[in-house]
Amino acid sequence: MPVSAEAAAPAAGEDALAALTALVRDDLEACNRLIVERMQSQVALIPQLAAHIVAAGGKRLRPLLTLAAARMAGYRGTRHVALAACVEFIHTATLLHDDVVDESALRRGQASANALFGNKPSVLVGDFLFARAFQLMVTDGSLEVLRILSEASATISEGEVLQLVIQNDTSSTEAQYLAVIEGKTAALFAAATEVGAVVADCGAEAQAALRAYGHNLGVAFQLVDDALDYSAEQERLGKTVGDDFREGKITLPVLLAFARGTEEERGFWRRTVEQREQSDEDLSMAIALMQKHRAFADTLGRARDYGAKALAALDRFDDGAEKRALADIVEFCISRAR
Amino acid sequence: MPVSAEAAAPAAGEDALAALTALVRDDLEACNRLIVERMQSQVALIPQLAAHIVAAGGKRLRPLLTLAAARMAGYRGTRHVALAACVEFIHTATLLHDDVVDESALRRGQASANALFGNKPSVLVGDFLFARAFQLMVTDGSLEVLRILSEASATISEGEVLQLVIQNDTSSTEAQYLAVIEGKTAALFAAATEVGAVVADCGAEAQAALRAYGHNLGVAFQLVDDALDYSAEQERLGKTVGDDFREGKITLPVLLAFARGTEEERGFWRRTVEQREQSDEDLSMAIALMQKHRAFADTLGRARDYGAKALAALDRFDDGAEKRALADIVEFCISRAR
Repeated sequence: MPVSAEAAAPAAGEDALAALTALVRDDLEACNRLIVERMQSQVALIPQLAAHIVAAGGKRLRPLLTLAAARMAGYRGTRHVALAACVEFIHTATLLHDDVVDESALRRGQASANALFGNKPSVLVGDFLFARAFQLMVTDGSLEVLRILSEASATISEGEVLQLVIQNDTSSTEAQYLAVIEGKTAALFAAATEVGAVVADCGAEAQAALRAYGHNLGVAFQLVDDALDYSAEQERLGKTVGDDFREGKITLPVLLAFARGTEEERGFWRRTVEQREQSDEDLSMAIALMQKHRAFADTLGRARDYGAKALAALDRFDDGAEKRALADIVEFCISRAR
Repeated sequence: MPVSAEAAAPAAGEDALAALTALVRDDLEACNRLIVERMQSQVALIPQLAAHIVAAGGKRLRPLLTLAAARMAGYRGTRHVALAACVEFIHTATLLHDDVVDESALRRGQASANALFGNKPSVLVGDFLFARAFQLMVTDGSLEVLRILSEASATISEGEVLQLVIQNDTSSTEAQYLAVIEGKTAALFAAATEVGAVVADCGAEAQAALRAYGHNLGVAFQLVDDALDYSAEQERLGKTVGDDFREGKITLPVLLAFARGTEEERGFWRRTVEQREQSDEDLSMAIALMQKHRAFADTLGRARDYGAKALAALDRFDDGAEKRALADIVEFCISRAR
């Protein structure tokens, strides 16, 4: 019974996430308390809406990275707790803004805050959380942290806008795609781990190494995410398969299948992704073409390359529970796509 | 020919704006150059969209306040130029986010960025400008400025959310309305003038006075704006009359007319503003009811009270061209509603 055995046993990656969470449990609980405390407002709709997304079963991956990175770099104080909350607030704000829809699209899976509350309240509550993040950083008092997270915020929005620009355009390049995921995902991962180094005051080289770890981990994470969107595994994670395809989002699996496809196959991609004329069988065809051209395998191979760079960036740090947990989290990010 | 004479001569208020602009012309030009420089991005859509709103004939009132406040408080350096740009970036970001629509509303007057480019790019470019503002503040290096403008940003979003909460609700209170305009408008006016005091390093009391000036000016400005929405004068300013009415926005003229109205008149407000069932003649009826109950006169009277407080806050500063210009700008904000 291989299937049920596999379903019962947690993946190696899930063990790694649980281990990381257990390792910094006290700090994470303090971070969660601060998040709930700082999302309060006299305007009751704000915590109501924020709670919907802040509490929505998030794994808190980014704040976990901040907490563990600070500890690995030798920090023994408590400043990293508030900075981890900043990172999560910025992440939450981008989720709320990323969910803005121009048409009244049918929402899939769990109802998004935007579907429940409307676009405009979601945008404004995102702004509130973004401002709260900066207020928390001001209280912390480090201009270096403010520099890192304001720059990351600008880069995130650039990545998100570029994603819109190349959407539905099969002539987009791999370099453009990489710029998108470096912006929309890797920038905040990199900032999350770098601020851990800043509070630990561990020197410019260690800070650059922790930034490199976060950046490469973030790229790997998004590459896997983009492969997962076409995988049945996605359903086990509670998400629907093919959302990217239906939106005509340009991701590496699409670019690889298009580049390696016959002229007839390219016609298929132009019709479905560019003109968004899709029938029920088209998703299966898209997946078949991706498998035919090894698009998934090569996307995951690319993710493993970035994962290896993330691991290498940890070399300079002393062995210990935090370093092992951060190393294992690389495997967690990649193994989601088994 | 009184009409053409009035159209030809600038209003006293417009003279005041021109005088303020002339007084800090060099600083304002430096500020405008910085705005154009810092809204650039490798993602070309960002400056394209930002230019649409940043360059859209804005009078730059908020950055003008920062520039003049700093000079009045004795500052002779150049830091206030970048901070004025921060204030304008934050203002622009809020405009882009305020224009998000939930339905595909017919856009009126000049096409908004959202109508031209779509909601989502507008939201993301707003995020970019917001992040850029914080990057500029980090370069400036004052945690006090960062504190003031991050707090203002949070307060703005709270005011905007509260505005949505009380929209279409005729049982809203004047206190709620005041909280809305203190948040969505006065918070940034107050921050704009306060950061002028911070760079001038003119002491806590002068800083509080400049903050009070900006706050009271902002409240007066928004009260007048809300009266103007029902005034033919609005058309001379290139805007359409009755936008607030059609959206069912709760402003002081509505609250006063409702509170002073007969039961039958309240039925009219409930139908038009609460249930948004409106016919072509309803706007004229709304204006007539507001006139009957002195809703405009009393809204403007309230604006004059706040204007007087703004003027009083200038008392402690030495006489000079900047102080006269800032005093005259109070009249500008109020006289728009002649």
